[in-house]
Amino acid sequence: MTIKSLIRTIPDYPKPGVQFRDITTLLKDADGLRQVVDALVERYADANIDKVVGIESRGFIVGAAVAYKLGVGFVPVRKKGKLPGDVLGHDYALEYGTDRVEIHSDAICPDETVLLLDDLIATGGTAEAAAVLIEKLGGQVLECAFIVGLPDLGGQQRLQALGYKTFTLCEFEGE
Amino acid sequence: MTIKSLIRTIPDYPKPGVQFRDITTLLKDADGLRQVVDALVERYADANIDKVVGIESRGFIVGAAVAYKLGVGFVPVRKKGKLPGDVLGHDYALEYGTDRVEIHSDAICPDETVLLLDDLIATGGTAEAAAVLIEKLGGQVLECAFIVGLPDLGGQQRLQALGYKTFTLCEFEGE
Repeated sequence: MTIKSLIRTIPDYPKPGVQFRDITTLLKDADGLRQVVDALVERYADANIDKVVGIESRGFIVGAAVAYKLGVGFVPVRKKGKLPGDVLGHDYALEYGTDRVEIHSDAICPDETVLLLDDLIATGGTAEAAAVLIEKLGGQVLECAFIVGLPDLGGQQRLQALGYKTFTLCEFEGE
Repeated sequence: MTIKSLIRTIPDYPKPGVQFRDITTLLKDADGLRQVVDALVERYADANIDKVVGIESRGFIVGAAVAYKLGVGFVPVRKKGKLPGDVLGHDYALEYGTDRVEIHSDAICPDETVLLLDDLIATGGTAEAAAVLIEKLGGQVLECAFIVGLPDLGGQQRLQALGYKTFTLCEFEGE
């Protein structure tokens, strides 16, 4: 089965009108998990990546497997207050209010090439904040990669307008 | 460097008197991440595991990499209200009050052999709750494995007293 066909859609979650794209049905499938990791590893195998950064918490799942297979380290970007060491934080706007993501200050070394991974890109706010944090530490964001893209929500265009490359393994239109 | 030596200790986090064992320094190290995943994969390579279950959220990091390398699916156990589909939940006692973890009702099939993974075992309450959920779905918990054990806090003995096998890659005494 294809990656897209293994993703379950849950209507009206977390609120009415939203079609939630649930990757747990993809990840629990041995072949689905393998397809996702192998596709990303193949894309970045020759890119001389130094670190994979995954965004809390579904970005941890595929991010660490890709980092392992690429033979590089894995770095988590977490929500406010979750990392125990010295952190660098970045606020970003939500539909109502703001949110904040953080990274350990020593997680990335200057000039390291970083692959940013998350499960899904919607409006791109969290990914943009994570990319800003990587760059504040001196890292170079090679690309922002996602299992699922929702192009109607504009996240990929937003990141591209800021100069970031984006990549998605599958997309759902008509959100 | 050894797995244990790559783990950073942060004193008085999250509260005074606690020595927090921070695995992010281990995971960001390419060789450290490789050692952790390879050690677990080697231990379970011939165990005919069907699924790896990882506990939110640090259990996702190593869990998915181990599942990928073993060629099986990955299933997340999450805190209350985070999984979008039909869930089974289990409450467990904290020092003050209770907490709840959940698993998708269709995440494990009856008689599947499951490896339960988390980053650290302290008192074992969350791991016990996750193991109960796996068994409620008909799964068999082969072993509960952790990167870090804190044997002075009794979690391993607690799980063993309930009939679960436990395994840790390293331990810190004197907590």
